[in-house]
Amino acid sequence: MPYKPHVFADNPMDRGDQQRRDENWLKESANDPDSRILVMPELDVPMTDAPSPSLSWMSPRDVRWFGIEGNPVFLGLMDDVAHFAVYVPATSGAAALLREDASIRFADARSAAGFLSGHETGIVAQARAQLDWHNRHGFCSVCGERTEMGRGGHVRKCPSPSCLAEHFPRTDPVAIMLVHDGDKCLLGQSRGRLSRMRMYSALAGFMDQGESIEEAVAREVREEAGIEVKNVRYHSSQPWPFPSSLMIGCHAEAATTDIRIDAEEMTDVQWFDREEVLLALEGRSRRLAVPQPLAIAHHLIKTWAYGEN
Amino acid sequence: MPYKPHVFADNPMDRGDQQRRDENWLKESANDPDSRILVMPELDVPMTDAPSPSLSWMSPRDVRWFGIEGNPVFLGLMDDVAHFAVYVPATSGAAALLREDASIRFADARSAAGFLSGHETGIVAQARAQLDWHNRHGFCSVCGERTEMGRGGHVRKCPSPSCLAEHFPRTDPVAIMLVHDGDKCLLGQSRGRLSRMRMYSALAGFMDQGESIEEAVAREVREEAGIEVKNVRYHSSQPWPFPSSLMIGCHAEAATTDIRIDAEEMTDVQWFDREEVLLALEGRSRRLAVPQPLAIAHHLIKTWAYGEN
Repeated sequence: MPYKPHVFADNPMDRGDQQRRDENWLKESANDPDSRILVMPELDVPMTDAPSPSLSWMSPRDVRWFGIEGNPVFLGLMDDVAHFAVYVPATSGAAALLREDASIRFADARSAAGFLSGHETGIVAQARAQLDWHNRHGFCSVCGERTEMGRGGHVRKCPSPSCLAEHFPRTDPVAIMLVHDGDKCLLGQSRGRLSRMRMYSALAGFMDQGESIEEAVAREVREEAGIEVKNVRYHSSQPWPFPSSLMIGCHAEAATTDIRIDAEEMTDVQWFDREEVLLALEGRSRRLAVPQPLAIAHHLIKTWAYGEN
Repeated sequence: MPYKPHVFADNPMDRGDQQRRDENWLKESANDPDSRILVMPELDVPMTDAPSPSLSWMSPRDVRWFGIEGNPVFLGLMDDVAHFAVYVPATSGAAALLREDASIRFADARSAAGFLSGHETGIVAQARAQLDWHNRHGFCSVCGERTEMGRGGHVRKCPSPSCLAEHFPRTDPVAIMLVHDGDKCLLGQSRGRLSRMRMYSALAGFMDQGESIEEAVAREVREEAGIEVKNVRYHSSQPWPFPSSLMIGCHAEAATTDIRIDAEEMTDVQWFDREEVLLALEGRSRRLAVPQPLAIAHHLIKTWAYGEN
């Protein structure tokens, strides 16, 4: 299958692996009038509407004008211009000022993704995941001391001389899989989700420590649906910045067919006919709704339904 | 390609997703005389030699006899028997007693893997990654408070009423890729490694936040070797518990061939002929040594060299 990036992938940024090792360069760039900064109050995405919806970048001067005080993370370089992202707490004066600015519209990352280009959704994924990680890692998990950002956001360091631990941003691999048995596929409703009555999706779950992708697929399907699988095949992957997952999409064949659901995690799991799934993909089924193209689940379902996997 | 588990995969444990939600069951099982506990001083692996090298499990009674005080993590169930792992600090009296016990031999996980069955290496991967994570997460990264283990080790919770953050074990996805250009493949020596003069391996690096596997492959090869790639294809994956990586192995075709190495990360990157690589796989090359079958890199190199990928 030729590679086509999912939403939240396709980030065009050169992540500046060299530049981020140079603290002086980072400091100068954060104040360089040419640099661009993505300002994210409560991780929401700033957009401009004209001429068409796109990310709204600010200059360092604008950021100062709004009184934004957060530590910017370095996203990387585009056309030799340094790009940063900065978090703004909801309770700050800057957040209030930002909301009053009619030239910027804020949306949560998932809604914003519906309007932005593929490249821009990739930038949003990186920025949102990184800022959220920093927000939640102000203290050293080894010793409890306050940590400090380094390398433009690629590390947080514990300054305590007896510790000096380094902490790196985390990315949580999630196995997501469409299990099929001839002309039927296995779809479920999980408890965590907004439960729209007809909405079913591919099964999925966080990978455990000490397992391969193929093993995680088998374990999740066994836990959630009581089904055994074989012939697990990787399809594609998608960064999912809520807060920092890597969705690893697979197809798998069912080795058993009797469903036994995990009632604590799932409200329902069912086999659906290909015909029904094809209708659902076109939004014409009365029994079934499936995720939109934003989500990798859609593409796992679609490639199977059209026999392309 | 039919699925064959790598070393450190193939864990036969039922991870007991249901049982680990029941704190009473966990407490009782940790003291049940039938339960088995893997005692890991400084994360080393306990082995017995008779009749052949295998993991050395202890009963809860033995664990008490040695004066081991750590909080055991629940690994899961095998044959309906609960299995746990516990960490022992080097400085404790228990560690000294353990080292004196002639019936147990301790080895670091990598060396131990050379002697254990595939199933057992999978258990070691899970146990080592989990214990290491708990050792490094005694404090809440959000607020600095001491955290408490829950769900038999699947979570650490912050007890501070103003925080209540939950922290989950981390697994760090690493992209590892063999890049080829016709009858040549790209191998490198990274700075971090023991630099045996002739030892070259597949390029690799931690995935960043907000990128797909395919993008991580392209970025790493660009950063480390200055080479552009196309047609990235997933091959297989391997848990690598040092401390908690998930190696995601891929093949990719070179789109450019001029090498420009990152001198801070790599000491050398070169194109090697298939002929030389085949000799190296048999241990007969004077110019080149490649990783052993323990590592996924070996299999990425081998499948390419033998034209099986």
